[in-house]
Amino acid sequence: MLITFEGIDGCGKTTQIEMACEWLEKQGYAVLSTFQPGGTEVGRQIREILLKRKNRSLLQETELLLYLADRVQHLKEVILPAIEDGKLVLSDRFHDSTVAYQGFGRGVDLSLIQSIEENVINPHAPDLTFLFRIDPGVSMKRIDDQRSSAGQRDRLEKEPLEFFQRISDGYDQLVQSSPQRFVCFDATASRKQIHQSIIRILKLRLKSILSQENRS
Amino acid sequence: MLITFEGIDGCGKTTQIEMACEWLEKQGYAVLSTFQPGGTEVGRQIREILLKRKNRSLLQETELLLYLADRVQHLKEVILPAIEDGKLVLSDRFHDSTVAYQGFGRGVDLSLIQSIEENVINPHAPDLTFLFRIDPGVSMKRIDDQRSSAGQRDRLEKEPLEFFQRISDGYDQLVQSSPQRFVCFDATASRKQIHQSIIRILKLRLKSILSQENRS
Repeated sequence: MLITFEGIDGCGKTTQIEMACEWLEKQGYAVLSTFQPGGTEVGRQIREILLKRKNRSLLQETELLLYLADRVQHLKEVILPAIEDGKLVLSDRFHDSTVAYQGFGRGVDLSLIQSIEENVINPHAPDLTFLFRIDPGVSMKRIDDQRSSAGQRDRLEKEPLEFFQRISDGYDQLVQSSPQRFVCFDATASRKQIHQSIIRILKLRLKSILSQENRS
Repeated sequence: MLITFEGIDGCGKTTQIEMACEWLEKQGYAVLSTFQPGGTEVGRQIREILLKRKNRSLLQETELLLYLADRVQHLKEVILPAIEDGKLVLSDRFHDSTVAYQGFGRGVDLSLIQSIEENVINPHAPDLTFLFRIDPGVSMKRIDDQRSSAGQRDRLEKEPLEFFQRISDGYDQLVQSSPQRFVCFDATASRKQIHQSIIRILKLRLKSILSQENRS
């Protein structure tokens, strides 16, 4: 089973994935918690290029291909083997991030992203996606507070608010096209509240999956 | 005008591009001599990932996407602006390298490479390509002699001879499909002999191009 955590930067998904992972492990599940970009040794080097502030010259086509390079490495080296081992995989970002950021955010043709993903990467569709919704102004303020000043933002976080608004709208369109896969949260609720909601949903989904497996 | 220099590692194309560049500049041409991967600041970082010996886990799909990321950055940041400036651009490797190495060498579907190149990169076709043909056993020995030991080969040079044989055969197929674009050399001839042949061809081609431009 693959569960992905999505949302714009500063939405709090990384904290939630940690809390969910801890809870699942306590319930006795074998869990792999991972992230994109950078969930492999090669991916870590790709991530560095993508986030380095001084890489201002990086073009949107280059950015897309680098994210996809990271994705295919992560999927085949980490995610698929873990799923085959029967692990529950939680990923901080996955395919939806590319559609939201490069597609809706940068304006790259969505059918192009889909075509490369299908032909080169052949991605495993997530079984469940948690989307953390937040106003970009609020999330950027969170990032600045965490990093003590706006000067510390990485190459992507430095983009203007409109960029994050387009991504946020893009995520909403993804939810509309796959409503059964997404569960959305108001990311301004307290950490604990969100975590409790996630636990409730995980209990339901895991019970239904385990009963399906027992039946088959 | 874009002139590319192609061949397997150790074929001597880098030396020839330097000699050709020097000669062209002496003739008064504005020349840009560049290379792939790594002809831009972002590309230099991508090149490091591609060639680093410790990146043994790098998958062929990741490798393809990294080469294409480097290509699009190089093309749009360096090559196209130089061509627009009226420069003669010489590139050490270009599109043919991806077809030969990732397509024929690794076995990646050729139509897939072509589709990404067409849709994401929209590459400028070279006007002329010099191919340096050499037996892979001879070229690998050259590399080892240059680097004092086989232990110094980079991630790609470390591949077995069969890999370079497939690439070499791939280049030959490319020549067959675009015979008018390629000029092939026996890379075991002396540097000076090859350089003299290149000069002869450049004189002819540049004269015909300049006369075409004068006519139009």
